[in-house]
Amino acid sequence: MDYYQESLKLHEEKQGKIEVVSKVKVESKDDLSLAYTPGVAEPCREIAKDESKLNTYTNIGNMVAVITDGSAVLGLGNIGAKAGMPVMEGKAILFKEFANVDSFPIALDTQDTEEIIATIKNIAPSFGGINLEDISAPRCFEIEKRLIEELDIPVFHDDQHGTAIVTLAGLINALKIVNKEFKDIRIAMSGVGAAGVAITKLLIKYGVTPENIYLCDSKGVIYKGRDNLNEVKDELAEITNVACHLGSDNPDCKTGSLAEIMVGADVFIGVSQPKLVTPEMVQSMAKDPIIFAMSNPEPEIMPDLAKEAGAAVVATGRSDFPNQVNNVLGFPGIFRGVLDAGIKEITDEIKVLAAETIASFVKEPTPDKIIPNPLEKEVAHAIADAIKNLNPNS
Amino acid sequence: MDYYQESLKLHEEKQGKIEVVSKVKVESKDDLSLAYTPGVAEPCREIAKDESKLNTYTNIGNMVAVITDGSAVLGLGNIGAKAGMPVMEGKAILFKEFANVDSFPIALDTQDTEEIIATIKNIAPSFGGINLEDISAPRCFEIEKRLIEELDIPVFHDDQHGTAIVTLAGLINALKIVNKEFKDIRIAMSGVGAAGVAITKLLIKYGVTPENIYLCDSKGVIYKGRDNLNEVKDELAEITNVACHLGSDNPDCKTGSLAEIMVGADVFIGVSQPKLVTPEMVQSMAKDPIIFAMSNPEPEIMPDLAKEAGAAVVATGRSDFPNQVNNVLGFPGIFRGVLDAGIKEITDEIKVLAAETIASFVKEPTPDKIIPNPLEKEVAHAIADAIKNLNPNS
Repeated sequence: MDYYQESLKLHEEKQGKIEVVSKVKVESKDDLSLAYTPGVAEPCREIAKDESKLNTYTNIGNMVAVITDGSAVLGLGNIGAKAGMPVMEGKAILFKEFANVDSFPIALDTQDTEEIIATIKNIAPSFGGINLEDISAPRCFEIEKRLIEELDIPVFHDDQHGTAIVTLAGLINALKIVNKEFKDIRIAMSGVGAAGVAITKLLIKYGVTPENIYLCDSKGVIYKGRDNLNEVKDELAEITNVACHLGSDNPDCKTGSLAEIMVGADVFIGVSQPKLVTPEMVQSMAKDPIIFAMSNPEPEIMPDLAKEAGAAVVATGRSDFPNQVNNVLGFPGIFRGVLDAGIKEITDEIKVLAAETIASFVKEPTPDKIIPNPLEKEVAHAIADAIKNLNPNS
Repeated sequence: MDYYQESLKLHEEKQGKIEVVSKVKVESKDDLSLAYTPGVAEPCREIAKDESKLNTYTNIGNMVAVITDGSAVLGLGNIGAKAGMPVMEGKAILFKEFANVDSFPIALDTQDTEEIIATIKNIAPSFGGINLEDISAPRCFEIEKRLIEELDIPVFHDDQHGTAIVTLAGLINALKIVNKEFKDIRIAMSGVGAAGVAITKLLIKYGVTPENIYLCDSKGVIYKGRDNLNEVKDELAEITNVACHLGSDNPDCKTGSLAEIMVGADVFIGVSQPKLVTPEMVQSMAKDPIIFAMSNPEPEIMPDLAKEAGAAVVATGRSDFPNQVNNVLGFPGIFRGVLDAGIKEITDEIKVLAAETIASFVKEPTPDKIIPNPLEKEVAHAIADAIKNLNPNS
């Protein structure tokens, strides 16, 4: 199937993918008097008296905004918020279909960090949660951080944490196959944008030794004091790859390339560009190397090439190969859970719980099955249940 | 039926009134690949190349924002945007049920004019039109004016124009009953807020002689140079009631009351407060007086009292009396029409057309039937058709 042409046809035929429908009928005078005036005054008055009634009398508690400024849409780059709307509507229907979360796409007419924050804060009363989407790094970090601090509803940048959660889920199962432990593995990471940063932080949270993560952006290895480091990269340079930072054990690292940091690594994680990884680079890795080549639609190395070069497990972002790292395994269930539980912040604990829940859906991991199928809608419900069962005192 | 208690029950049982659903199915891998990645990249690319494709590949062209700052909700006053959300959700379902317009309620966390304007402009790319709702005067005038100037989608403050349009529709038929002409009637108007201002302007547009409209707010008659006039009232003082303005023919007017301006008036229009009008005041009017007592839920004078005092026709905002002035007769069809026709501004011509279309649904007006039943959904379709048939050169 030609997905591109068929998708165009589908979008045109349906004129987009979402609609806003009524949960109540409006056929009679009484219907009108209850759903609208005069009856509607009473839920208004009740909420005015006690704001906690908002989720009782409106749909806000089940409504998530999917917000983009269009600065980093899929692999298409800064195509603008309007052009990003087919993705946002897509996200909205996945929320609904996978977890019965209502969501609404918002395209912003600004890419200014402060304006984005102010605008989202001003429309926040309409929503039970905020899903940031396709906002480029490093602005996405500041925007998310500030909104988490300043709003009392959950805020989640899916390009960061959704990807990190599903990557961690896959890695949990991949390591079982090769019999390695998180604390022992060395990771070569290509790409230090939204996803790369969040993956690094979540892996450290899960037990990977910070010094064992070697980060590489388009300018080479990240180390403290390098030129062209934004604030977040600088922070990561501090906490990862201390050898480079000290410049002692590994002096060459300062001018290192992706090829150099892949030598001896147990895991390659790519959230960067197509074709950066060669078979020789895979062969230079430690025994039973694990490859997560998630550049989309074209991965850092194609799965068959990686396998021929000795990869024990390969995952990509693509649906036409095994082990697709697809965020839809994460965000619907996570929001279902936090909305139902009234949780105001999606903590690292929740992200880890979501990853473990996803991983648990593969009972016996094999090289071709470390991640559940994205269409297994039970995953979302299991994540939601796990979040709802979280012991707040644990 | 106790509308208040039943409405509470309904809202709680349904947890609000709207939901966002998918127009496409997401059951198979192919479904996912077409509605989301990788296929969705293609409509994104097409819109990036040619923004006019936005309405072809997304639902934005059928999506209206219903936006409030909660400053003037129903008759409840400044109860805040969250407490106003049951009304906004109500509006949203009426859009959908009456005219298949999708709409989405936005509660703003600010009541600052400039912040409201900036916020709405920043989220405007998500919508094909903006319906402002329950924003208090005089801020609503500036907000609407600026958004009309600065956005290229239709912007409509329903509390102003919706009420004005349905009032005009009713008055067209009421005047037929009493055999009077718009150009000859004298009008006493109580209330110079959002609705009062818009009604005044639309009636003048339709042929009422400006000097024949006597406006009265809570401080008495409006005249040029009076204290406590905001910019809009000052403008109306200039264009209406020249006698007062000149201070010659009618010197007492400067300290006049509602009772005084009702003496000899053909029409009373109230968009103000309950119980301001007494039977004696109705008796003081010209022959066959017409009473539009639209304060809600309690009118300026109850219909039976007004009729006993000699009113030829009485209209209110209530569903339990004849002649309900209900905005739902207007906004769904108006937006259906302008969205379908690609019209960027809801002009006075369109407002008049909508009013005439509504009026035309009552073939033979009688004192108890000057306005169609709000549940006549054909009205919306007729308005939409009339707008689509507008000759842009006429």
